[in-house]
Amino acid sequence: MPHLIAVGGSDAGISAALRARELDPSAEVTVVVADRYPNYSICGIPYYVSGDVTPWQSLAHRTIADLEAAGVRLLLDTRAEAIDVTGRRLSVRGPGGATEVAYDELVVATGALPSGAGIAGLDRLGPDDGLHVMHSMGDTFALDRHLAERAPQTAIIVGAGYVGLEMAEAFTVRGIRVTQLQRGHEVLSTLDPQLGAQVHAELSAHGVEVLVDTTVTGVERCGAGLQVSGVHQGAPFTRSADLVLVVVGVRPNTALLAHAGATLGAGGAVAVDERMRTGLPHIFSAGDGTVTHHRLLGVSYLPLGTTAHKQGRVAGENAVGGDARFAGSVGTQVVKVFDLVAARTGLRDREAVRAGFAPVTSAAAADDHKRYFPGAHPIAFRITGDERDGRLLGAQLVGRLGTEVAKRVDTYATALYAGLTVDQVSELDLSYTPPLGSPWDAVQVATQAWAPARR
Amino acid sequence: MPHLIAVGGSDAGISAALRARELDPSAEVTVVVADRYPNYSICGIPYYVSGDVTPWQSLAHRTIADLEAAGVRLLLDTRAEAIDVTGRRLSVRGPGGATEVAYDELVVATGALPSGAGIAGLDRLGPDDGLHVMHSMGDTFALDRHLAERAPQTAIIVGAGYVGLEMAEAFTVRGIRVTQLQRGHEVLSTLDPQLGAQVHAELSAHGVEVLVDTTVTGVERCGAGLQVSGVHQGAPFTRSADLVLVVVGVRPNTALLAHAGATLGAGGAVAVDERMRTGLPHIFSAGDGTVTHHRLLGVSYLPLGTTAHKQGRVAGENAVGGDARFAGSVGTQVVKVFDLVAARTGLRDREAVRAGFAPVTSAAAADDHKRYFPGAHPIAFRITGDERDGRLLGAQLVGRLGTEVAKRVDTYATALYAGLTVDQVSELDLSYTPPLGSPWDAVQVATQAWAPARR
Repeated sequence: MPHLIAVGGSDAGISAALRARELDPSAEVTVVVADRYPNYSICGIPYYVSGDVTPWQSLAHRTIADLEAAGVRLLLDTRAEAIDVTGRRLSVRGPGGATEVAYDELVVATGALPSGAGIAGLDRLGPDDGLHVMHSMGDTFALDRHLAERAPQTAIIVGAGYVGLEMAEAFTVRGIRVTQLQRGHEVLSTLDPQLGAQVHAELSAHGVEVLVDTTVTGVERCGAGLQVSGVHQGAPFTRSADLVLVVVGVRPNTALLAHAGATLGAGGAVAVDERMRTGLPHIFSAGDGTVTHHRLLGVSYLPLGTTAHKQGRVAGENAVGGDARFAGSVGTQVVKVFDLVAARTGLRDREAVRAGFAPVTSAAAADDHKRYFPGAHPIAFRITGDERDGRLLGAQLVGRLGTEVAKRVDTYATALYAGLTVDQVSELDLSYTPPLGSPWDAVQVATQAWAPARR
Repeated sequence: MPHLIAVGGSDAGISAALRARELDPSAEVTVVVADRYPNYSICGIPYYVSGDVTPWQSLAHRTIADLEAAGVRLLLDTRAEAIDVTGRRLSVRGPGGATEVAYDELVVATGALPSGAGIAGLDRLGPDDGLHVMHSMGDTFALDRHLAERAPQTAIIVGAGYVGLEMAEAFTVRGIRVTQLQRGHEVLSTLDPQLGAQVHAELSAHGVEVLVDTTVTGVERCGAGLQVSGVHQGAPFTRSADLVLVVVGVRPNTALLAHAGATLGAGGAVAVDERMRTGLPHIFSAGDGTVTHHRLLGVSYLPLGTTAHKQGRVAGENAVGGDARFAGSVGTQVVKVFDLVAARTGLRDREAVRAGFAPVTSAAAADDHKRYFPGAHPIAFRITGDERDGRLLGAQLVGRLGTEVAKRVDTYATALYAGLTVDQVSELDLSYTPPLGSPWDAVQVATQAWAPARR
């Protein structure tokens, strides 16, 4: 009866634990959880803040009772402090104090931490001052309390990535006036600016004040609220609000494994092979603290919940004697922003050049379904392929909610997984009925527009 | 300046003509159109009948002016009567009488004809009697006139395939009480009956009377309406209505090419190679009158608009000196029935056995998006894979309108194209955001349920 310990109660750790139990019901499986909220959907927090999701308990992918029924032992409010690699013992500190737990196999899934992006003052300020981050259920409760008790009228969101955009919508829905500050030239910088501009317009249309080319250098208290300072389009800039939310990305939380002697790799994350092995005996790593094998880029760092689930599952399978491999990410992502959905998969031009490809990118627009049927809307596409061999390298798309953009990007993601060419996407036998598509689906209209761009 | 003639003004003929002009702007391109309605979306007719689409002219994929602007010459109200293969001359009969037209390359895209399924009386009855079919714009106008002038209260639809189901919805929306007669044990027999039953329930919930196990053998006039007779669950059966619509499938319209000496193949359709060549010199065939290369079944007969577009494009490209190949169908289909969407791609168990595979099919249900976000609905899946090598063979799914079933089937269709295994579908990097999906998308929850079924 092997004893598997997973450190981390989010996607990767829980996936590892459940997969191990599924494959080996005799395995003893323990998950060390830093707080009291294992297996919560962190991606769902903006929808709790917006009021779409209630109560907060429904954000749990599974309840504690579910997990225990699956044979997973949980050590709540417990932090892993050190690993005795040779002795296979994990030092933990929990409600009962510090202790050591023996393991046969260890999966470390300690995730990521909010990046401060070098903004001065973050270390001195907290929720009581009106400064928030979005990382844990604890952060969520602090924000929730702030909204309930102090009814802020204005908010500054530093960052305009996925979470920042979702939170701009959530605050707006709650009646809070939002100013969104973005360092780059356009919001959602994971997309080309031509498409980011559509997201920008959607934010503006819903009353969000968006300031791009704005680097925040500091935050300080100012009356009952906070003031951010920095540089906007080359000039000094300050702005005050009742609440400031900093969502400028994450950094891998590697302290436990780095201290144990693990190698760090891309993005400073823990290096692993495709079997999620760290190189330290009997120790796996998975999730947002771990490097990501990318099918086009090789080893990179791209922390995403979907990847954490898959990596955790692989680690859990191998921890009980399996031989699973993580097949690799292609960087598929999607976000809903008010009534718009923006998605991407694969590489953009600049990323593809860095990876040694010869990319050409073309733009197209195509209706989500036959125009004669009510409710048709155009979807904007950008298709990237390699001009040498025609291989599909990436796709970006933006369309109205309801235009099935999230699943259309999956067609490209599947094509990328399989290594198809752009032309082969046009050959796919995709579904068609006038209320939901066209004889050449919009994804194929977009790839057909790429071929001439290549010439 | 080669002269290409395409016979047939629907999907395949027009696709061939446009592709030829696109690749060789010097080509002279003529399309022979039997009626006055080239390039109409026949798949859209049910939505014109329902009132969703208006006016009928909007059903045109492109207008006559569009086509002429693209350099396509149209011979309207003109039928092709014979081919002089050696002399490369086509006999046509149009408004000006009979004549011959010289061609360099010929693409025959004469489509399919309604199948009567051996029902007695169909040859003696027509729209004026209340008997309708759905094949051409002419049929549409006849039905439209019937609805406008005689305001039928009741309709019998013989057949419960894609068009029959769409028409049941259309008539119901128009306030007509519908009885739908289906020969098989369940409606939409292209799906397994477990899923067909969901479509059946949706029809019933909207007031459609569905009678399965009902074979119609005859139709005759009865008072101001029509009476169908046949066998229902082994017993004699009659039923009357103001209007009878017969939609029991099609047969390939091969007379022109068969007379010219072309070989017929699967389903009695014109045999072609992957380049859409008939074997007769300079003569291509494409669309619903032509065999279908299927990536899993080999040569079969599966007339679909999506395939007609692709085959026509290949024929048009090759007719002007190209070397394109039709990559093959995987049988992807989708239909909206009231508030339900049903889709399939690839093979079902029985079809797979006939094709030499060793299929195992498993059922699963998974929410279209995270349940905590409002509006989540389960999608029902049936996944078929080969138990020997794990290859994905097919997928069937049914879900509420809005659950993105039509694009989710495309993920499977892409996987089938690429020859992926069921397990590889679970490895795909699909998109996730809580309002539109789950960390393991529903399509992957379904494939993960297959693996244990295989053991």
